[in-house]
Amino acid sequence: MTSTFFPGPSDLGHHMIFGNVAITTLTGDHLQISLAEIPKEGVVDWHSHSNEQMGMMISGQAEFFIADERRILNPGEMYRIPGDVRHKVVAINGPATALDIFYPIRPEYR
Amino acid sequence: MTSTFFPGPSDLGHHMIFGNVAITTLTGDHLQISLAEIPKEGVVDWHSHSNEQMGMMISGQAEFFIADERRILNPGEMYRIPGDVRHKVVAINGPATALDIFYPIRPEYR
Repeated sequence: MTSTFFPGPSDLGHHMIFGNVAITTLTGDHLQISLAEIPKEGVVDWHSHSNEQMGMMISGQAEFFIADERRILNPGEMYRIPGDVRHKVVAINGPATALDIFYPIRPEYR
Repeated sequence: MTSTFFPGPSDLGHHMIFGNVAITTLTGDHLQISLAEIPKEGVVDWHSHSNEQMGMMISGQAEFFIADERRILNPGEMYRIPGDVRHKVVAINGPATALDIFYPIRPEYR
């Protein structure tokens, strides 16, 4: 049954980014969620976008590079990436999962 | 050390809502994250706000009531609550954690 509130399979976006990073997305009116599953040794390579991005580590461990800062994040730790700031994420010690949120919506991630 | 990208303790908001639900928040330029920890049998009672809300279950199990729909959600499952739509969340079978996101920012959650 289709629901505005509880997405069914056809409401979720599925994309592969940076080669082998799988994202599952849900898009609202202004907000967008992207659950990124980075495999062991996977890399979300340096990039930037005008959209503001924030997020939280869900599982595993990853090293975040944002502008000229770097930090290893564990589950429950949050980050924020203002628009147009370059960033890169590397899974370390196995696969890692992070929940990203974007504003405004990234149409290519629908 | 203060960082725009990696919040320290003083960058996070901590509030108790609906009696015994603890939220830990991070606020950006336009986006806001709120990690809600609902204790066993805890209830985020019926309410609404003009802000769009989306989110994902992180741990445990909760029953979501949104307008006239209800659904039990497990970790990894997502939901979206358009602005001004009434909703309620009840932890079931123990404590539950969900990551909420808001747009625009809720000043009272900073």
